Amino acid sequence: MSWYDALFHPQRVAVAGSVGEGKIGRVLIDSLLDGGFANAVALNPRGEGVRGVPGVRSLTELSKSDSPVDLTIVASPAATVADVIEDAGRAGVNAAVIITAGFSEIGNTQGEAEILETARRWGVRLVGPNCAGIVDTHRGLFATLETHPPSGRVSFVSQSGALGGAVLSWAEEQGVGISKFVSYGNGVDLTEIDFLEALREDNETRVVALYLETVSDGRRFMEAAARLTSVKPLVVIKSGRSQSGGRATQSHTGSLAGADAVYDAALAQCGAIRVSGIEEMFDVCRGFVHLPIPRGRRVAIVTNSGGPGVLAADAGEAAGLSVDPPSPALLTRLRGQLPSVCSFSNPFDLTVQGGETEYRDTLEAVLSEYDAAVAINVNTPYLDVAPLARGVVAATQNTEKPIATSFIAGRPACAALPVLADGGVPNFSTGERAVRVLSRLAEWGQKDEQHAQVPWMGAATRKSKPLPWGRTPVEPEAMSWLQSLDVPVIEHVVARSAEEAVDAYRAFKAPVAMKIVSPAILHKTEFGGVALGLSSEAAVLDSFHRMATVAPDDTFEGVIVSQLIEDPIEAIVGLSTDAQFGPVIAVGLGGIFTEIFHDIVLRVAPVSEEEARRMINRLHGVALLRGARGNASRDLSALAQLLARISRLPFEFTGLIELDLNPVFLFERGCVAGDARIILASDPTDPTDQRSD
Amino acid sequence: MSWYDALFHPQRVAVAGSVGEGKIGRVLIDSLLDGGFANAVALNPRGEGVRGVPGVRSLTELSKSDSPVDLTIVASPAATVADVIEDAGRAGVNAAVIITAGFSEIGNTQGEAEILETARRWGVRLVGPNCAGIVDTHRGLFATLETHPPSGRVSFVSQSGALGGAVLSWAEEQGVGISKFVSYGNGVDLTEIDFLEALREDNETRVVALYLETVSDGRRFMEAAARLTSVKPLVVIKSGRSQSGGRATQSHTGSLAGADAVYDAALAQCGAIRVSGIEEMFDVCRGFVHLPIPRGRRVAIVTNSGGPGVLAADAGEAAGLSVDPPSPALLTRLRGQLPSVCSFSNPFDLTVQGGETEYRDTLEAVLSEYDAAVAINVNTPYLDVAPLARGVVAATQNTEKPIATSFIAGRPACAALPVLADGGVPNFSTGERAVRVLSRLAEWGQKDEQHAQVPWMGAATRKSKPLPWGRTPVEPEAMSWLQSLDVPVIEHVVARSAEEAVDAYRAFKAPVAMKIVSPAILHKTEFGGVALGLSSEAAVLDSFHRMATVAPDDTFEGVIVSQLIEDPIEAIVGLSTDAQFGPVIAVGLGGIFTEIFHDIVLRVAPVSEEEARRMINRLHGVALLRGARGNASRDLSALAQLLARISRLPFEFTGLIELDLNPVFLFERGCVAGDARIILASDPTDPTDQRSD
Repeated sequence: MSWYDALFHPQRVAVAGSVGEGKIGRVLIDSLLDGGFANAVALNPRGEGVRGVPGVRSLTELSKSDSPVDLTIVASPAATVADVIEDAGRAGVNAAVIITAGFSEIGNTQGEAEILETARRWGVRLVGPNCAGIVDTHRGLFATLETHPPSGRVSFVSQSGALGGAVLSWAEEQGVGISKFVSYGNGVDLTEIDFLEALREDNETRVVALYLETVSDGRRFMEAAARLTSVKPLVVIKSGRSQSGGRATQSHTGSLAGADAVYDAALAQCGAIRVSGIEEMFDVCRGFVHLPIPRGRRVAIVTNSGGPGVLAADAGEAAGLSVDPPSPALLTRLRGQLPSVCSFSNPFDLTVQGGETEYRDTLEAVLSEYDAAVAINVNTPYLDVAPLARGVVAATQNTEKPIATSFIAGRPACAALPVLADGGVPNFSTGERAVRVLSRLAEWGQKDEQHAQVPWMGAATRKSKPLPWGRTPVEPEAMSWLQSLDVPVIEHVVARSAEEAVDAYRAFKAPVAMKIVSPAILHKTEFGGVALGLSSEAAVLDSFHRMATVAPDDTFEGVIVSQLIEDPIEAIVGLSTDAQFGPVIAVGLGGIFTEIFHDIVLRVAPVSEEEARRMINRLHGVALLRGARGNASRDLSALAQLLARISRLPFEFTGLIELDLNPVFLFERGCVAGDARIILASDPTDPTDQRSD
Repeated sequence: MSWYDALFHPQRVAVAGSVGEGKIGRVLIDSLLDGGFANAVALNPRGEGVRGVPGVRSLTELSKSDSPVDLTIVASPAATVADVIEDAGRAGVNAAVIITAGFSEIGNTQGEAEILETARRWGVRLVGPNCAGIVDTHRGLFATLETHPPSGRVSFVSQSGALGGAVLSWAEEQGVGISKFVSYGNGVDLTEIDFLEALREDNETRVVALYLETVSDGRRFMEAAARLTSVKPLVVIKSGRSQSGGRATQSHTGSLAGADAVYDAALAQCGAIRVSGIEEMFDVCRGFVHLPIPRGRRVAIVTNSGGPGVLAADAGEAAGLSVDPPSPALLTRLRGQLPSVCSFSNPFDLTVQGGETEYRDTLEAVLSEYDAAVAINVNTPYLDVAPLARGVVAATQNTEKPIATSFIAGRPACAALPVLADGGVPNFSTGERAVRVLSRLAEWGQKDEQHAQVPWMGAATRKSKPLPWGRTPVEPEAMSWLQSLDVPVIEHVVARSAEEAVDAYRAFKAPVAMKIVSPAILHKTEFGGVALGLSSEAAVLDSFHRMATVAPDDTFEGVIVSQLIEDPIEAIVGLSTDAQFGPVIAVGLGGIFTEIFHDIVLRVAPVSEEEARRMINRLHGVALLRGARGNASRDLSALAQLLARISRLPFEFTGLIELDLNPVFLFERGCVAGDARIILASDPTDPTDQRSD
């Protein structure tokens, strides 16, 4: 029996823990029985049963003729858990859910290692420890201390037990039905990756929602998430966005949280939809469960009230939808079917004339043109709202496009809610929330255009070679190496003497730039190791001699002389190594754009040229590269090619943890790296505390 | 009797309109009676009464011995409204609330003018037409068709009747008590300005909330809002933020909506708090009603669950709060009083150990150091949550600092809610929403540091002089004029001949810039009218002769020659005229920063030097001016002085509708306008369709 079947389709479930009144073992048995799952057995030192559930001291006591126990839910004290797992293993149990806390989350890594070792020895797969349990509403299996949620099509996987519990408690009020629920706690064995894999195949799950503090393995997570999103939506809350949030995530999970921007990129690259919190998660899940995916971003807002219509239009545009006016043909059609007092722009304001027919006909009309619609109704206490809701439901019958509603507010709107619910129309507390959901659905509909596949990482890692140096290379070494790998670098000469520098200057026949070569000087500008715009032999000589005095004894290896690029347009290309996701590639515009405006786009590496091009297009300052302000447009294909090439390097060479090309000069045709800085993992002289600057 | 007393403290109220079953007049009388206001009279052509309320054909029929009618609520057909007002005037009624629609909102401006004229003639003040009525819960006066909200301390003024109705319907569920409610509809007489003035004095109102589509008079609105916010908070929803939203606002109110960025500035300048929609409005109002104002931005998050704590921390930092770790002293104190399993960073995670005492003691401890706290509790079905809520309430007794809570979720949390409500502690649906409210309260607490007073506009407007030209001035005219007004401009020479241009070049002894002077050429760069970096007499001559051919016949007036500024750091200063708020001053960094990054800060003019300095500090790129990337820092005081000076010009001179200084060159000491473009209101040659570029 697979671990998944053992968890969600067990024949018999054992509950390890005291069954005394108020004890957790007892609460678990109550939860199972109240949910309708009666084939349980209580496991405790006194072999005590309760409410008709038999008790045993060991699962091995059970007779062979009973239905076998597939799953043990563990709520006994931390010190006993290894023995419980051992007993389960001996009795042929396939999986255990360990609710008991007191392991790595409080520093007890030894205890956690012991239960894992025991489980591995017996082939028992583990959920937890320190988790809130599992639920399968379709089997009536509630192996949890938490509230029983209504049954539905959303499966929720949570790294936090408490947050998982809150979601279960809140689901009914939010109108979200749950299929499977898993809280995996410390994730000693099964993690979010395993559940994403399994839920991909689960026909009872239409949408997977995930609360994540940190991934257990960034690359495997991306693969599993991308496979999942190829068949169904994945909605993710990733906490720890801020500095303080990140600190808390770290301390309370005992693992290092990755930089949030990398999570943002990774989640987008694998097609997941990142939401800001629980409320948005519920909203988006309801959208996915009930609505078809819009084919585009044009939304029509149909309302009986100007103000809420305008607020929804504002929110729609802010979320990237277009809320354009209707075509002349549609306008004519609407004028023919609505009273003249109505407003025919978008929002379409039916005013007090908005009855059942008007809602139905207007929605049908606008959906002949728009990709999606929001129907807003602000009720007054003296009007019967149910017919208006019926008008909306009727409109959904004749279209394959999504209609979300916001029938508000309070008691006067109540009569509409069951009509909408029966009609399968999701209602949101405001029009703003409704349009934001449609925007997320539209984003999902376009995800294949937004991102190429998950970064390829296949065989290359196995073929990877060592880097050619045992220490951080000086710039000319890095430049030559890059050149040998088809990365274009600026034309340059290494001059070891003043005479060689002057010869180089003469050869360039134009102003030159000069930079020091010394393994001791990483930050050349700070230490007077860069001179730009040298336009005489005297200036070249002068700079050379000055630089020769800058480097510490014996570390001066000469200078690099290169042609000065006049009025440069510069990009920055960087490769770094994220603790969770490994190699990450970044592109930005040079100088102030990166430093002050933080205009940078990140992706988990490697990226294809196509994806690299999309990265460039996402820069706010891309207009500059395309020829804004009288500049000639730059060769973005060449930059994309360079990005893609650089992004593959960490998979071809071992030990490359950081590489900066700053600047990359962009020309009308082509581009070249003007400087290269490489940091090696294995370099003992690597000053890691300088890496961030 | 003042119009305000007539509206909110009437002795007797007349309801004009049919009292037949289901008719609006009848619904209004029901609403009044159900609310407990019995002293009403029904006014209709048949003089029909209902439910003990007497009916009359005219208010003049009423006996002098009856208590006088102060207020008429009008629900009779549009065509009858003028007569109803006339009758009210004759009978000595002071105010009328016209619920009836069918006036300017559907193009019937004549009908609207007629009722206003009638009202003015009799001294009757009007609310409406096309409005949802008024409410005063403290008098039990519900002159509206909408739901009766619970009584409280928030007064709500709404331009939209439907949105107002939604707020009333929703108030109870959202836990917000209403004091006064006014829907002013088309605002033919009394507008939001009058209600802001009046509510300032109203002791039953602690917070004023306003839904606004467009202001009736930008300057008067700002004055009234600023006077209000000097004593109590004003929370504003301004819709029409987006293009489509703005379009709808315009079409459904019949007035031109101002640019949203100007509203943003104006609202901030008068100390109002702009929220994104109804949900945030309720949240923020509850915060203001129940919580003391934090004195700073340091927030502590106390939770029993990691995940929700981290989400709140993320939201807090995103909203500009600091969620820093505790001091060593506080850490020691907490370690002494909490079990070691708790987390002592911020968020402070009490884990399952979080009982009544732990919540109380931890909140008391953290508030010795932080400015505000959020207490989060995620309940599980098997724990009694009421004691934890009591712990939070106990902590509020011993502090003057705000504590907001998020006890979640669903039914398990219900037992906490009455405890919190009785204790005056506002509970929010998520920790994120709770911290966002604290951030708004902190913003309010710091508003006097954020903005100087509302723009001064006093006597200057009366003294204003005409501009010295009858048409758009050419650049040298504009420059001389500015110079005469103490605005520093770049040193320049106007050369009418090639010889004069060469002389000027010689005098500068350095590379120069040359620009064409011609009233026909506004966009000099486009038409080849600008040459930079001329460093030889030949180049100067060449450029002069080329420019002489650029301008149409007889419009060439010579060139301006000025010293070329090398490696300039440029700002842009602009003055424009907003339809609602009048003169608006803007500052941005030059070139791409304005064009591509939209790094611009606006204020309604005039601004003081202090406010101008704050504008500059709000530019994202201000670091560049402060000496980032090896640049010398620039004279921001000089720029602030220039901004303040320019911002006063529209009040000193009539007809100045647009002025652009682009660029303003910034030096280590001082700054100068490098170019000036002025557009006059009265200039018939003013190509208004070019103004936006």
